[in-house]
Amino acid sequence: MAQTLNYLPAPLARTPPALNALLRDLPDTWTLRNEGPDTWTAYDVIGHLNHGERADWIPRVKRILESGETRPFDPFDRFAHFRESESKTLSQLLDEFALLRSQNLAELVTLNLKPADLARRGRHPALGPVTLSNLLSTWAAHDMTHLHQISRILAYQGRESVGPWSKYLGVLHCSGHSE
Amino acid sequence: MAQTLNYLPAPLARTPPALNALLRDLPDTWTLRNEGPDTWTAYDVIGHLNHGERADWIPRVKRILESGETRPFDPFDRFAHFRESESKTLSQLLDEFALLRSQNLAELVTLNLKPADLARRGRHPALGPVTLSNLLSTWAAHDMTHLHQISRILAYQGRESVGPWSKYLGVLHCSGHSE
Repeated sequence: MAQTLNYLPAPLARTPPALNALLRDLPDTWTLRNEGPDTWTAYDVIGHLNHGERADWIPRVKRILESGETRPFDPFDRFAHFRESESKTLSQLLDEFALLRSQNLAELVTLNLKPADLARRGRHPALGPVTLSNLLSTWAAHDMTHLHQISRILAYQGRESVGPWSKYLGVLHCSGHSE
Repeated sequence: MAQTLNYLPAPLARTPPALNALLRDLPDTWTLRNEGPDTWTAYDVIGHLNHGERADWIPRVKRILESGETRPFDPFDRFAHFRESESKTLSQLLDEFALLRSQNLAELVTLNLKPADLARRGRHPALGPVTLSNLLSTWAAHDMTHLHQISRILAYQGRESVGPWSKYLGVLHCSGHSE
């Protein structure tokens, strides 16, 4: 199993079932509403995670192994999911996320990385040199950034119903940190 | 089933399975580490949620129904879980959370609340008058505040391994908003 690879952040295998348990069959009033203009819904976030599974993480691992720093990563399209998710239901997106993540973790196993590989470097188009280890850690931290965002999007839907308690609810005071 | 009660925030039934999927069997290096002095671990947060299931939400619903504004809620002890969780494993705390939440949602059904009951008022010891509807919404928003916190605690454990990507990861720039 992929999650036994000791260099891999353990939460990676757990994000899809966690988001599935949180969001599947939740009414649209929670999952298809955002936090205001130019913000995402929980549905949008799952589409974005799926785009990352297709276009970002494993392709970048391979780019490092194949080209090192000589060929930068392709830029990540942060809006591609609006096109890719068209006509899909949230349940379909959640199924896709579980499948893509599990395929990607299985593919990592086949790459048979050695400890020394983790220090190999690639080039991010904006950030410059990064290691394979940075990339794998970022994959998991990116999951957490979006779980953080989804918890905030859901809380936002009930922001008026909580009345005076709003003051005590940290999540309602989160500005989003440019997620 | 409790989650079909239309006045109840739908995420309430989903937080325990979501946290279970995210945290069960995650290595201690993720679940027993905090964000620095005077902050909580993911383990601490689940203990705190369990204390809320025992001492906060349903007892306050009953206080509103029994005493209205004449008798304020008992203050909520935000540190009780350090005592209650002693000698329990994270798996035990997650099992408890699922059980307590499900018992509490079932108990709500037996209270047979009517739409008019949702406007009934109680008194919070610090915030003053609040409605039963505020209380039920806050129960769910409190879950989201702590899911938000847990995603941040987990991301924090990998904060150094992400290297230059730290800049792009919103969750690493969250100050916690006094959670």
